[in-house]
Amino acid sequence: MQSVYVAGVAITKFGKDPRTLSEIFCDAARSALGNAESPEVDAIYIGTMNPEEFTGDSNIASLIADAIGLGGVPAVRIETASSAGAAALMAGFQAIASGYYRRVLVLAGEKMTHLSTSATTRILAEVIDRRDRQCGATMPALAAMITEKYGQKFRLSESRLQNILCQVALKNHANGARNPMAQFQRAITREAYFASKFVATPLRLYDCSPITDGAAGVILTSEKTDVCLAGVGQGTGPLGLQDRDTFTSFAATKIAAARAYRMAETSPQGIDFAEVHDAFTPFEIINSEDLGFFPPGKAGEAVLDGKTALDGKLPINPSGGLKARGHPVGASGLAQVVEVVKRLRGAGVSKREFKRGLTQSIGGLAANNFVTILQRADAPVVQNLWPPNGAPIARPQKVRAAPAREIEEGIIETFTILYVTPDGFLPPLALALIRAPDGRLVMAQGEDETELKIGQEVFLRRVDGVWLFTVKSQLQKVQEAFMKLFQRKAVATAKDNRSGEPK
Amino acid sequence: MQSVYVAGVAITKFGKDPRTLSEIFCDAARSALGNAESPEVDAIYIGTMNPEEFTGDSNIASLIADAIGLGGVPAVRIETASSAGAAALMAGFQAIASGYYRRVLVLAGEKMTHLSTSATTRILAEVIDRRDRQCGATMPALAAMITEKYGQKFRLSESRLQNILCQVALKNHANGARNPMAQFQRAITREAYFASKFVATPLRLYDCSPITDGAAGVILTSEKTDVCLAGVGQGTGPLGLQDRDTFTSFAATKIAAARAYRMAETSPQGIDFAEVHDAFTPFEIINSEDLGFFPPGKAGEAVLDGKTALDGKLPINPSGGLKARGHPVGASGLAQVVEVVKRLRGAGVSKREFKRGLTQSIGGLAANNFVTILQRADAPVVQNLWPPNGAPIARPQKVRAAPAREIEEGIIETFTILYVTPDGFLPPLALALIRAPDGRLVMAQGEDETELKIGQEVFLRRVDGVWLFTVKSQLQKVQEAFMKLFQRKAVATAKDNRSGEPK
Repeated sequence: MQSVYVAGVAITKFGKDPRTLSEIFCDAARSALGNAESPEVDAIYIGTMNPEEFTGDSNIASLIADAIGLGGVPAVRIETASSAGAAALMAGFQAIASGYYRRVLVLAGEKMTHLSTSATTRILAEVIDRRDRQCGATMPALAAMITEKYGQKFRLSESRLQNILCQVALKNHANGARNPMAQFQRAITREAYFASKFVATPLRLYDCSPITDGAAGVILTSEKTDVCLAGVGQGTGPLGLQDRDTFTSFAATKIAAARAYRMAETSPQGIDFAEVHDAFTPFEIINSEDLGFFPPGKAGEAVLDGKTALDGKLPINPSGGLKARGHPVGASGLAQVVEVVKRLRGAGVSKREFKRGLTQSIGGLAANNFVTILQRADAPVVQNLWPPNGAPIARPQKVRAAPAREIEEGIIETFTILYVTPDGFLPPLALALIRAPDGRLVMAQGEDETELKIGQEVFLRRVDGVWLFTVKSQLQKVQEAFMKLFQRKAVATAKDNRSGEPK
Repeated sequence: MQSVYVAGVAITKFGKDPRTLSEIFCDAARSALGNAESPEVDAIYIGTMNPEEFTGDSNIASLIADAIGLGGVPAVRIETASSAGAAALMAGFQAIASGYYRRVLVLAGEKMTHLSTSATTRILAEVIDRRDRQCGATMPALAAMITEKYGQKFRLSESRLQNILCQVALKNHANGARNPMAQFQRAITREAYFASKFVATPLRLYDCSPITDGAAGVILTSEKTDVCLAGVGQGTGPLGLQDRDTFTSFAATKIAAARAYRMAETSPQGIDFAEVHDAFTPFEIINSEDLGFFPPGKAGEAVLDGKTALDGKLPINPSGGLKARGHPVGASGLAQVVEVVKRLRGAGVSKREFKRGLTQSIGGLAANNFVTILQRADAPVVQNLWPPNGAPIARPQKVRAAPAREIEEGIIETFTILYVTPDGFLPPLALALIRAPDGRLVMAQGEDETELKIGQEVFLRRVDGVWLFTVKSQLQKVQEAFMKLFQRKAVATAKDNRSGEPK
């Protein structure tokens, strides 16, 4: 396979950008081309999530090629929801690795800030499972449910969990304050974090990445440069939360990471720093574990201990991450690569040299993830086996879908109270993933706002295709127990009667 | 470069399909996988144009991977407007050619028939230039303007042009009648063609491909099979008609063809049959010329002579083409490949064996085109140089954009009367591409319905960002001539007076 190297990289100032999507793309393209030695490319790979609905731009690949002044040059749009930028990089990588092209321009961008928050939230929510959307679930709602489950699984107290999430936000905003291209240029305080409102319990506003405009550009080439695209990997996972067998780890990341580590002939120990997809602060925690940086349940402690800070052993999101750099959805996966390349080339103040960096990007609710490893020519060989046992990562097994009817009760697997609801749903909106007695899961909307808890028993009913749940009261539970006892007795009596009948 | 071969291929019955987009995709995927020897694949490449707006499906790659039961397997969506299917094939090709993957599933599909014709037309029109859309132009309108210009350039009488277009429609419908997967299963008559209404002069309903649901699937593999993906090529061109230096040929096709012929080490003479993008009958004529099958202006004659018929020297669209097989936009580029592979494998009644077939797919208004060459192991070597002079195909030069104001008159470069207008525009709608005195072009809407002709002089004015034109009457022309004469005299007199002044 032909080795693939990085020439020029560029990124626009993330935030609210008054220019059109096409103009933002052109800016990134021209900077990347200017940054590279030669301005000619064989093809253009464009990552963008949904310009059709965000800005009304269809046929975006032709549009951008034409706008850059590269009409004639082959141009393709690549999309995997919010990891589109990473997907475009991988497509560009394969094009050069094949020898078909020698030099390609990879672009990724999105324009979102011109729309209302509710319009943006609606478009973003289209990437999640239809059944989840029907209940009023949004990306933050599902991320919150994953977080609630993470806390319960690893026995973190509510305050411990909040402290961990707060520390991720503090760290990434502090890093963003040092990045002139980041959307947020100021560090935040612990007080500001805890004063910020809940979007979906336990996630606050400061746990969620912002709405952003921006684009990034990378020139990939077969000619040797100082930075090599050492490893790339992709994996998918179930779309819906109810189809998953685990909520506190993303199968798609593990598959992508195994592939990237194997290709780069390295392991988590060989990574000096990483840019991971912190669209929500808890995702940074989960990603760090899925990437093998920390054992399951231990990444929070690492963050609190400062291990992932800028001067820590393994800096994570030194650029500020999606959280503070901003998250123009389709752009983020490529923006991470730009940030890593810049740092490998010496940008950013740091006590030590970085020789090998990793990026991890998430598409949708972690349904389509990418891992990319970039390294300098002088990166040391760290050839530990990954995953540790050397076994291939198994594909996630899809959990049997719940039937349309027949479930009448279940237990709360995880939940959230959503305060920023989509159009047509009034806040606060209780949402819970309910496990039926036969093990299957359904997403349901709460009929009241009683205090929810993982493990609580609920009644379920289905109205207009949406599952509704009500928490069983203490009295109802006692009544049920009596009813069961009574029924068992009645059955036993009936049996006794039958056995007494003449044969 | 690793050679890439075709294993299984599949196509759904095109037409009105009651199933969801996901179900249609799954059908194509399962058939392709069942058709191949081994059901496992390393990755999935999905071509689709606009499921976001056609069916409300975002994150389609993850959705389809999940729905097929291939959760975990990397899946990417590729888009280049209506050539998305061909783009997905090319991405899959590069992935295997690189050695990164060994076996991939390429899928392409679209679901459109559930929407109203006006909604579908609106979504389809989003792929064209914004300035053209503002005037009320649609894809058929622009295709019609290209056709009008083609007739004028090659001095075809109105009836000769209509006969050529009619013959393309007759041929492709006759071919479709033999294809059980085609949307239209009946041949049409010359009378039916001429009785069909004008959509946009000179194009009738029978000149336009239908609205269709459908999907296709192709397994690509590094393991040798009976059919090899011998050549692939892509090119882009200007989005807007007003940015082009030629209208009767598509630069994007020429670039793509040169690349594909070179890679396959063949030329037009080496092609036994072709599936080309006949979204409109005149496009089959133009494509045949751009691909080098016939000299410019001569493809019409070839069609009338039966050279491209099923039993002709070079059958074109033996499957029925987009015209009769149907045109689920994102699917068509891959459906063509499926049809070619089937025929190479002996499907379809034919007197002779086909050993090398070509497909050509158009994205948008021929702004993003692909050429793919497929051949059997026993295909003879035909190594003529292509293009004939061996020179690389030059990138199209973008014509200088017209300024927002200051043009007051011009000459009709080409025009159409549109009878099926987008929402907000009343039929009949006169549209014309006007060439300003300085050579620049603008798209304009006619203020009246006078008889239009290429070369006619018009007045131009701009209202609310849209150019409007009125044909100059004979009287106005005489008045203008007098005015000019008078002004010249006045200037001359003024000069005489000035020169008579004391220095």
